[in-house]
Amino acid sequence: MPRISESTIRRLSHYYRVLEEVEAEGKRLISSRRLAEREGITSAQVRKDLSTFGSFGRRGLGYQVAHLRAEIRAILGLDRRWRVALVGAGNIGAALLAYRGFARQGFDIVAVFDRDPNRIGTRIGDLVVRDVASLSDAAAESRFDMGVITTPLRAAQEVADALVAAGVRGILNFAPRKLFVPAHVALRTVDMTVEFESLSFALSQARGSRRGRARA
Amino acid sequence: MPRISESTIRRLSHYYRVLEEVEAEGKRLISSRRLAEREGITSAQVRKDLSTFGSFGRRGLGYQVAHLRAEIRAILGLDRRWRVALVGAGNIGAALLAYRGFARQGFDIVAVFDRDPNRIGTRIGDLVVRDVASLSDAAAESRFDMGVITTPLRAAQEVADALVAAGVRGILNFAPRKLFVPAHVALRTVDMTVEFESLSFALSQARGSRRGRARA
Repeated sequence: MPRISESTIRRLSHYYRVLEEVEAEGKRLISSRRLAEREGITSAQVRKDLSTFGSFGRRGLGYQVAHLRAEIRAILGLDRRWRVALVGAGNIGAALLAYRGFARQGFDIVAVFDRDPNRIGTRIGDLVVRDVASLSDAAAESRFDMGVITTPLRAAQEVADALVAAGVRGILNFAPRKLFVPAHVALRTVDMTVEFESLSFALSQARGSRRGRARA
Repeated sequence: MPRISESTIRRLSHYYRVLEEVEAEGKRLISSRRLAEREGITSAQVRKDLSTFGSFGRRGLGYQVAHLRAEIRAILGLDRRWRVALVGAGNIGAALLAYRGFARQGFDIVAVFDRDPNRIGTRIGDLVVRDVASLSDAAAESRFDMGVITTPLRAAQEVADALVAAGVRGILNFAPRKLFVPAHVALRTVDMTVEFESLSFALSQARGSRRGRARA
């Protein structure tokens, strides 16, 4: 399979969700145009993305929904289950634990850690919060494929180091800080504060330019 | 002020958090090298970013922490308060409501809406969940600057339309779907599912390539 870019992966991930929806509606075929419409891209882009890994729709008929979904599922690594350790049992951590969507896609949060003595030993859903100091012992008992970091900013790098030492090969970071991990570990970041600040910047600029127009 | 790119804004947002930390430590000066180190970029990039809006450090001394922080705060629109309406009182919505960090940065979630009769009328923190059908009436009473969408995928576009009709000028979308909004509305997306799937793709590829090497 040719090398697939990060932006193609993101589009595949979107196609996958559209296909799930369309399959739930009982449809067997989908056109590149419909896949494109839903994502606000061109149908040429859809056909290019899908041809990259050898899936071609039939002219006038489109793609077979179930087949295409299975293909993308395999490419994205969603045809197996991933064991996820979550560190940081605060609000965001608890919300992720309660969200069933991840498990449906194959991501099982199997352990949760914190360093706050008030949280250690408490129960969130099916899991008991463990001391983050026991992370490496826990990893020795039961493999973790990925780690999720939902700690405050200050603790995040230390937690990332501990997760890497515990053998995870991917980290999803929610702490608003750039983290450093070895090249063999995949890192993705969800920074909600940056998104909010990018919005407030955009709104401030718009205000500024409206004022400018009013003055002119 | 010259036009500032989205990636510069994201770096400013990071500098801002480093400056907050350094100020809390009681430091008065910070070098471009230290701002760079923390973010994993070059000090030349930091100096370039900061010079864009006319802030220059003194050679050998660095930048004045309080002054630089105030400047970035104003640029990012964090020197005022933003009124935020949240739609979707599920797990992620409730977590955002409970997270105090946003209020500290000036983002006040002042209203929460849902369409589930079981949720409408319940209390989350200081707020009572209101019927999403009353969004435009609520907006007429009390201005909303921004909207946050934490609904399931299917409802997201309809909710975005309702928020736009209610006069918001910025939307932060957590639903895993591309949304369409008019040009005068700023849209940012936090798609956790895509991040997870991008990780599982990366891990699957790594597995694949290791197998490849073992065979070779």
